[in-house]
Amino acid sequence: MRIGILGGTGIEGRGLALRFAGAGHPVVLGSRSSERAVSSAEACNSLLGRVAVQGVENSEALRQAEILFLAVPADRAAATLSLLRESIAPGTIVVDVTVPVKFTGGIPEHAPRAGPSNSEALAGCLPPGASLVGAFKTVPAHLLAEWDRELHCDVFVCGDSRAAKEKIMRVVGTIPSLRAVDAGPLRMARALEQMTVLAIWLNRRYETRESRYTIVGI
Amino acid sequence: MRIGILGGTGIEGRGLALRFAGAGHPVVLGSRSSERAVSSAEACNSLLGRVAVQGVENSEALRQAEILFLAVPADRAAATLSLLRESIAPGTIVVDVTVPVKFTGGIPEHAPRAGPSNSEALAGCLPPGASLVGAFKTVPAHLLAEWDRELHCDVFVCGDSRAAKEKIMRVVGTIPSLRAVDAGPLRMARALEQMTVLAIWLNRRYETRESRYTIVGI
Repeated sequence: MRIGILGGTGIEGRGLALRFAGAGHPVVLGSRSSERAVSSAEACNSLLGRVAVQGVENSEALRQAEILFLAVPADRAAATLSLLRESIAPGTIVVDVTVPVKFTGGIPEHAPRAGPSNSEALAGCLPPGASLVGAFKTVPAHLLAEWDRELHCDVFVCGDSRAAKEKIMRVVGTIPSLRAVDAGPLRMARALEQMTVLAIWLNRRYETRESRYTIVGI
Repeated sequence: MRIGILGGTGIEGRGLALRFAGAGHPVVLGSRSSERAVSSAEACNSLLGRVAVQGVENSEALRQAEILFLAVPADRAAATLSLLRESIAPGTIVVDVTVPVKFTGGIPEHAPRAGPSNSEALAGCLPPGASLVGAFKTVPAHLLAEWDRELHCDVFVCGDSRAAKEKIMRVVGTIPSLRAVDAGPLRMARALEQMTVLAIWLNRRYETRESRYTIVGI
């Protein structure tokens, strides 16, 4: 399963590239600049000890992959999708990992630019035939990027296309130490984004950067 | 620490009464009907094998306890507090455990009657000098009521009065197998209520009634 990552030069994108490449998937890492994409891909391959990640310009990543992780900053996600909209083929699954957060008096708050969650707003930016899935929202990016570290937490996956959601759950399930959990329809992104806001608060309160979730009882 | 429970004849109230009494705290279990309160308290004492829970009318529970759990149904919480408002002494801590949920097409949705969360709305129903704390929102009521069962999950506690929040965290911390987690200011109830909505969905999806949360990394 070839996996594309838009905005792959940030820490979230690199973390996803490393985890999926580490699990045996070919990865196409995209960026607005192909030079930066190549350089980021080379850094990943060097860590992995083999060539599993290819760096290309975002639109080329789009052409090569059926599953596309959108790993740009939360406030640039809609613009990035709108820019690439014409190139998104029917059947493409776009996976939104973003969480819109603002800080008021040092306290994080959920701050989607439109609608009740970023994922729901982004779904409206896709062409017909493409699906939006939310995932990885509650997993700290810098922990993903420590690519050989066991995380022992859940990856919540939500989306309105059951087939798309299940495909993403299967591919997430290939990453060791992460459990893919079916978190329901796309509007559950409201809960997932709020959970990340809480995790950011917990990180400050408990002086860590590692707060993440697991469900007991399933 | 004497603990009062308003609406103590429901499963959530009985569960809290059993857990706190089991941890050695005297508990005053309130109801609109003193007969039902007495009967519910007797059922608790019978399970516990000693007299640790007293059943009284709600306003009497208010008079006897400095910490009051509000364990009525989510849509009756504001009316209950408004009715008792005059009797709530300064220094009282009211702990809101409610989660407003509605179902649309079988899928649960967060549905506060006013404001962005039930806890924030209820804070406005308190007289000056009393504090509202949110807690236990994500812990399944029927699991609390299995009073000798180890739950191994987190109890998220939020509130704008740091002293009140810390007092509730200390008392929660006396219950074995539950970890009290400081979830920040009262507005984090938005996250906690949404997390319960997600847990309800997970229960249906994974055919269980036991979904609950723990934070990894703190």
